[in-house]
Amino acid sequence: MKLKAFLFVTAALGCVTTPGLAKPKAKPVAPVAAVAEAPEVTAARLRDEALQSNGAYDFVAQLTTRFGARPAGSESERKAAEWSAAELRKMGFENVRIDTFPLVIWQRGAESLEITGPFAQKMVVTALGGSGATPAEGIEGEAVLFETYAEFIDSKTDLAGKIVVILQPTVRTQTGQGYGVNSGSVRRSGPEEAKKRGAVGYVMRSLGTEDHRFAHTGATRFTGVDGLPALAMSPPDAEQFERLLKLQRAGEAGPLRLKMLSTPTVRTGGQSQNVIAEIKGSKRPEEIIAIGGHLDSWDLGTGAIDDGAGVAITMAAAKLIIDHKLRPERTVRVVFWGSEEVSQPGDLGLSGAMAYAKSSDKDKHIVAAESDFGADVIYSLALPKTDTPDFNKTLGKVLYPLSIFIERDPATGGGPDTSPLNAKGVPIFDLQQNGTDYFDVHHTADDTLDRIDPKKMSQNVAAWVATVWMIANTSVTFQPTNGK
Amino acid sequence: MKLKAFLFVTAALGCVTTPGLAKPKAKPVAPVAAVAEAPEVTAARLRDEALQSNGAYDFVAQLTTRFGARPAGSESERKAAEWSAAELRKMGFENVRIDTFPLVIWQRGAESLEITGPFAQKMVVTALGGSGATPAEGIEGEAVLFETYAEFIDSKTDLAGKIVVILQPTVRTQTGQGYGVNSGSVRRSGPEEAKKRGAVGYVMRSLGTEDHRFAHTGATRFTGVDGLPALAMSPPDAEQFERLLKLQRAGEAGPLRLKMLSTPTVRTGGQSQNVIAEIKGSKRPEEIIAIGGHLDSWDLGTGAIDDGAGVAITMAAAKLIIDHKLRPERTVRVVFWGSEEVSQPGDLGLSGAMAYAKSSDKDKHIVAAESDFGADVIYSLALPKTDTPDFNKTLGKVLYPLSIFIERDPATGGGPDTSPLNAKGVPIFDLQQNGTDYFDVHHTADDTLDRIDPKKMSQNVAAWVATVWMIANTSVTFQPTNGK
Repeated sequence: MKLKAFLFVTAALGCVTTPGLAKPKAKPVAPVAAVAEAPEVTAARLRDEALQSNGAYDFVAQLTTRFGARPAGSESERKAAEWSAAELRKMGFENVRIDTFPLVIWQRGAESLEITGPFAQKMVVTALGGSGATPAEGIEGEAVLFETYAEFIDSKTDLAGKIVVILQPTVRTQTGQGYGVNSGSVRRSGPEEAKKRGAVGYVMRSLGTEDHRFAHTGATRFTGVDGLPALAMSPPDAEQFERLLKLQRAGEAGPLRLKMLSTPTVRTGGQSQNVIAEIKGSKRPEEIIAIGGHLDSWDLGTGAIDDGAGVAITMAAAKLIIDHKLRPERTVRVVFWGSEEVSQPGDLGLSGAMAYAKSSDKDKHIVAAESDFGADVIYSLALPKTDTPDFNKTLGKVLYPLSIFIERDPATGGGPDTSPLNAKGVPIFDLQQNGTDYFDVHHTADDTLDRIDPKKMSQNVAAWVATVWMIANTSVTFQPTNGK
Repeated sequence: MKLKAFLFVTAALGCVTTPGLAKPKAKPVAPVAAVAEAPEVTAARLRDEALQSNGAYDFVAQLTTRFGARPAGSESERKAAEWSAAELRKMGFENVRIDTFPLVIWQRGAESLEITGPFAQKMVVTALGGSGATPAEGIEGEAVLFETYAEFIDSKTDLAGKIVVILQPTVRTQTGQGYGVNSGSVRRSGPEEAKKRGAVGYVMRSLGTEDHRFAHTGATRFTGVDGLPALAMSPPDAEQFERLLKLQRAGEAGPLRLKMLSTPTVRTGGQSQNVIAEIKGSKRPEEIIAIGGHLDSWDLGTGAIDDGAGVAITMAAAKLIIDHKLRPERTVRVVFWGSEEVSQPGDLGLSGAMAYAKSSDKDKHIVAAESDFGADVIYSLALPKTDTPDFNKTLGKVLYPLSIFIERDPATGGGPDTSPLNAKGVPIFDLQQNGTDYFDVHHTADDTLDRIDPKKMSQNVAAWVATVWMIANTSVTFQPTNGK
C-alpha cells in the first residue's frame, strides 16, 4: 500500500528528465531565507527538489561508464577515487581528501565446473573471493550433494576426496534477511568446514534470488590460494543439480563426477583508499554527520547497485544542499569507503571502514549512516534513541509524502561500513531500502547501470537529504546504537 | 485482449499439476467412439486434455536435464537423439528411426573483449558460430563505432586494421520481425562485409531484446577460422559503448582501443541426425502430416526454449492422440531435426532439414509445420489455401477458446526446418507464437528450463493437437505455400 502510494506520487510528477550522461547542473533557485525558515520547511523543499532531479543517477552513470568494475585495491578503484575527489571539489564540497590503507589482493583466475558423467554438461560458476586454487589442470572428484547447509553440517558421510555441493536457496525478502542467514554460514564458513572434513572442493548455490543464469560471487573467509577451491553456481544450475539428484534417487544414474577449476592468485603490498568530502557546519562544525557508500565493487559487473548507487545517493543528497546555497549548522561529511567487498587474512575485512573508524576525528561524529542496498525506494527510517522530544514526529511528517515511516523501535545499527564506527560508540541511523530484488543482481555480471530505475533512486535521495538536513539543523542528539 | 482472455481461462483451470521430473503417465480415459464423433468434437476433447497435461514440460525437463546443451554434431546431440528415439518407442510411436547426415563442426574456443583504454574494462561477449579466429594472444585495434548497420554500410571511414563495432539494437516485437531484419544483415553478412573493408575484427550488439547481461550467439556466414573474428556483446555492454561514445563526442576522451580474443576450431567429418516417429494413419497412411522442432541447441544454455520446447510441444501433441487410443486417418509424423543452428561451408546450413527434404517420401507430405519460437502461447494460425470450404471456420471454432484466431491471409511459409520442404512444394501451416520475450533468452546461457511457463506451454500443445487432429481427420487438401 505504502509503495503504491509512492509510485502514484512520483508518476504524478511527470516531468522527470530523461537520464543521460550530461553532468548535473545546479538549477537556478530563488534565494532561501534559511534563518527565518524552520528546518522541516527547508527539508521538505529539498525533498521535493530531489524528486525532480537525477543527480544520483547521473553520477552513478558516470562512475560505472568511466571505470566499469572497481575491485578493491585495483587501478580502477584508485582512478575512480581520484576522479570522484575531483568531481566532489568541482561540486563545491570542502576538505576533500583521499586516505589510503594497505590491502592484500585476491584476484580471480580461470574458473569452470562441469559434470563429466553421467549427464555431462558445463555449469555457470564463479569463484568466491578469498578462496583457494585448484592446480592448473583442475581437480576431479565425486559430488556429494546436500539440499541444505544444515544437512551438510549434520552429515556423517565420508567426504575425503569429494566435492561438496550445497543446494540451499536464498529466501527472497524485503529486508535482506534471507541473504543474511546464508552469507555467514554457507558462503563464509562453508569452504573451511568442508576442508576440515577432507573435501577437495566446495560448490554452493549462489546467494541470489533470481532465476537468471548468473553466478554470484562474494567473499568467503580468506584462506589464500592454499585454502579449499570454492565456487558459487547460478541458481538455475543448482536447480539442474536438484533434478539430477531426483534422477539418481529414481535409480536412473550413479554418482555424479565433477571437474572443477579455479586459479586465483594473491599478492600482498596492495593499497586502497577512502574518499572524504564535507559541507562544513555553520554553527557547530565540530559535530559531524557522516554518510556514504562504498566505491569498490566486485569484478564481474560494473558495481552499479553495489555500490555505485550508495555513493551516488548520499553524494547527491549532500550536493542538493550545496546547489541550494544552503549551509547546515552541523558538518555533513560524505565518505566513499574503499574495499568493502573483500575479506583479508587473519579473519579481517572492511579495511576501508576500519581505517576510517580509527581516524582522529571519530569522536566528533554525532551520527553516521550508509547506503549499500541498491537503488530501490526507502520504506522506513530507524533512528537511534534521542534526547529531543518530537524530533521523530517532525521528521516523520517530512518523510510521509515519500511513503516512508519512522520505525517505533530504535536503530540497532547500519551496514558493514558503519559497523566499526558503531563499535566505537557512534550512533547509526538506517534508511531502510526495499531489497526485494536486490539479490537478483548483487555480485553478478548483471550489476550494471541498466538495473537502476532513476525515479526510485530519486525517492531515495529525497529521503536522505530530508533526514540529513533535519539532523544537521536541529539540536537533536542521539545515543549510541549499541551494535548489532 | 485476446491474451488476457486466455490467461483467465487457464487460471480458471486451477488444477494443473506441479511440474516435476516424473515421467508423464497415460491417464485412464473412457474409450472414445472415434468413428461416430465429428473430428471437431474429438479435437476439442484433445485440446481440453492438453490444457490439463504437462507432457511437453516434462519432456523438455528430461531432455535439458539429461543432456544440457546439444550442439549440432556433438556427442550430446547424438545421445539426446538416441534417448529421444527410445522414449518415442516407449510412448507407442511407430516407425521410429534415426537418419544421419554429415556435418562440418565449428567449436567455440576462448573468447573475450576488453577496452584497454581509455575507460579500461572487460565486456561480456560470445563468438558468432562459423566465425574466424584471432591468434592465441588476441588482437588489438582501434574501435570504429557505428550506431546502425546502415551507417556502417554507408561509411567511407578507412577501416584498415580497425575493429568494427555495430551498436544497432533489436526491436522487440510479438512476431520476431525485429530479429529477422537484423539476423541476415548485422549477424550474417556483417563480418564478411567488414573484412572486405580491411577490418581485423567485428563486434556487434547481440540480437537480443533484454537488458540482462547475456551475450547472444548465433550463426554468421561460415568462414571457418580463416574468416574475420566476430563477437556479439551483451545489450548492456552495447549501451555502455553508447555512453562511452557520448563521452568521446563531448571531447572527454580519444578513440577507444580494444583487445579481442576468439579461438574457435573447425573439424570436418562430423555427423548429425534427424529423429523420426509416426502414428500411422488408419485410412490414408500414405498422406503424411509432418510436425516437429529441432533437437540441437547452442552450446551456451541448455536449449530449453530453443528448441527443446518445439520438439516437446509437437511430440506431446502427437502423444495425446496415442494416449487416448485414437488413430488418425492420415499419418502424423513427428520429426526432431538435427543441426538447425549452424552454418556450413559454401553458404549452406540447415543440414538436417535439407537431408529430410531429400527423403524418398517427401512427396507424400500433405502439409508440414514446425515449432521453433519458444514456449509462450499461440495467438494465431496461418493455413495454406485449401479446397475444403468451411475447414478454416470449423477449426477456428475449436481454437477460439484458446484465444487463437485463424489468419485471413494464407500462410506464406514456416520456419527454417520446413523451408526446404516448402521449396519442394509441401504446403506449410504456421501456429504463430507470442515471441515478445523470446529474444531476451534465445542463444544465451540463460536458455534453461526456468524460462518456460508450463501453463503457457500446455496452451501451445492444445493448439497443436487440435489443429493436427482436424487436418488428419478431414479430407482437407492444401495448396503449396509458395515459399517466402
